[in-house]
Amino acid sequence: MNPDVAFAVWCGERQQRIEHVLDRSLPVAAEGPAPLVAAMRYAVLDGGKRVRPLLAYAAGETVGADPAVVDQVAAAVELIHAYSLVHDDLPCMDDDTMRRGKPACHVAFGEATALLAGDALQALAFVVLARGRLPDLAGAYSLLGDAAGCRGMAGGQAIDLAGVGTTLPLRELETMHRMKTGALIRAAVRLGASCGRVLSAAEGEALDTFAAAAGLAFQVVDDVLDVEGSADTMGKSVGKDARQGKPTFVALLGVAGARERAEALRVEAQGALRPLGGSARRLSELADWIVLRDR
Amino acid sequence: MNPDVAFAVWCGERQQRIEHVLDRSLPVAAEGPAPLVAAMRYAVLDGGKRVRPLLAYAAGETVGADPAVVDQVAAAVELIHAYSLVHDDLPCMDDDTMRRGKPACHVAFGEATALLAGDALQALAFVVLARGRLPDLAGAYSLLGDAAGCRGMAGGQAIDLAGVGTTLPLRELETMHRMKTGALIRAAVRLGASCGRVLSAAEGEALDTFAAAAGLAFQVVDDVLDVEGSADTMGKSVGKDARQGKPTFVALLGVAGARERAEALRVEAQGALRPLGGSARRLSELADWIVLRDR
Repeated sequence: MNPDVAFAVWCGERQQRIEHVLDRSLPVAAEGPAPLVAAMRYAVLDGGKRVRPLLAYAAGETVGADPAVVDQVAAAVELIHAYSLVHDDLPCMDDDTMRRGKPACHVAFGEATALLAGDALQALAFVVLARGRLPDLAGAYSLLGDAAGCRGMAGGQAIDLAGVGTTLPLRELETMHRMKTGALIRAAVRLGASCGRVLSAAEGEALDTFAAAAGLAFQVVDDVLDVEGSADTMGKSVGKDARQGKPTFVALLGVAGARERAEALRVEAQGALRPLGGSARRLSELADWIVLRDR
Repeated sequence: MNPDVAFAVWCGERQQRIEHVLDRSLPVAAEGPAPLVAAMRYAVLDGGKRVRPLLAYAAGETVGADPAVVDQVAAAVELIHAYSLVHDDLPCMDDDTMRRGKPACHVAFGEATALLAGDALQALAFVVLARGRLPDLAGAYSLLGDAAGCRGMAGGQAIDLAGVGTTLPLRELETMHRMKTGALIRAAVRLGASCGRVLSAAEGEALDTFAAAAGLAFQVVDDVLDVEGSADTMGKSVGKDARQGKPTFVALLGVAGARERAEALRVEAQGALRPLGGSARRLSELADWIVLRDR
């Protein structure tokens, strides 16, 4: 099979798989107040590229992990990601009305229910992780909790909000994104890899370097697509960062410069995988996809 | 020593202890964006009766647990509680401006920072729990996550918000409170007890019955104090439930009826402790305190 086709098939299979795992992980109507359960399911299912679960599955494959074990860490990371989108879209945060091609959760269910749905999804992520039969559960919890907390995603979002209307220097913009999206992407990779054989220190470092570069590349490309993409293909409002006066890679580097930076990060990410050999093929292909995607 | 004095000393020591544990668990300035870290610390420290940590320490004492192990579960539960207060006070939820005798977190730091501080505190709770060297970490995570999520605290708050302006029958009002506050109080008791010797099924059931009755009593008394207390002693707005048209035990039963219900729950809670014998003394005293407190 053509490698591109084989990769597309692999992605499709894993996306279908995680959809099923998320569906089973989410509460059903009888397990909570109807609007809250509906909002939680709405915020998670039928949408998203599932980049973080794909990274977790790919990292699991580099170390011969059982995909059934990776399922739980992939779902946990995606639940954290989904909750963060619900909260980020709230009026007091980024005030976005469209997400994954649908009205944002707070538009569909009201602010209070959206806020609670986000809260409940974060709690659920930690419940789901407990099902993962991981060899080092305490380590996994620290990794996921730190990635979500003030040194990770929540901290990055706080810096992002404080930066509206200012010009962050490139280094600070990168720090913000390493926290806001990079920390959770690193968690996806490291947690996926924690489901298999024990890593050497060099292999762990290789995965971290890969995740840092791929995560940042993802954000740089997001900034480019926010300028070049359409709301139709992106499934969310575009051009909003510029209108809100948010610092972006495009604002600092221009579109061509941002594309160059993304390309350099792809090379860095793929170079980092060398110690892992051919088993890291899917991770390498995901780096291609992250940089070359059009949505 | 007079038993009342001995209990007061015990409470004071444990409250001081948990304050120290929470202080060390929270991030310091260098570990995140300054306003976010400040908001997290503001929302947790120097306030609160620490009912849940006290219950965790008391439950730990019934099974000979090492207080140093209980520290982590007590802190985790209190962090969840503190985050829920921050989110509950937000304008799109209960819209409260005063909490623990100070301006609510969103008044002091703005809505976005308060929202993120709550999010980061929830993540931190799960990180702190991982430090607890618990014999059954996966079980502990399920317990805490379920208590915080849509079948517990977040679900109860959703029912509470939906109930504004309606009259819930007593049974539904109790169900709401069993989710909104009862689930986390049960988690405090069960997690505290999980730090010691293995419980028999009957002992586990005894603790659950105790926690359910004590948790509900706490809420009934809260409703009474919302009518009878002053903002000064309570440290938060009072009389607000009635103004907002929220269903309360006082609205359904009157003040005298609510006090009777609280008293019956105290008897039930203390009766449930019999299989645990004298080792459950602090839990029994906490039930007294929950019902007889004036703030």
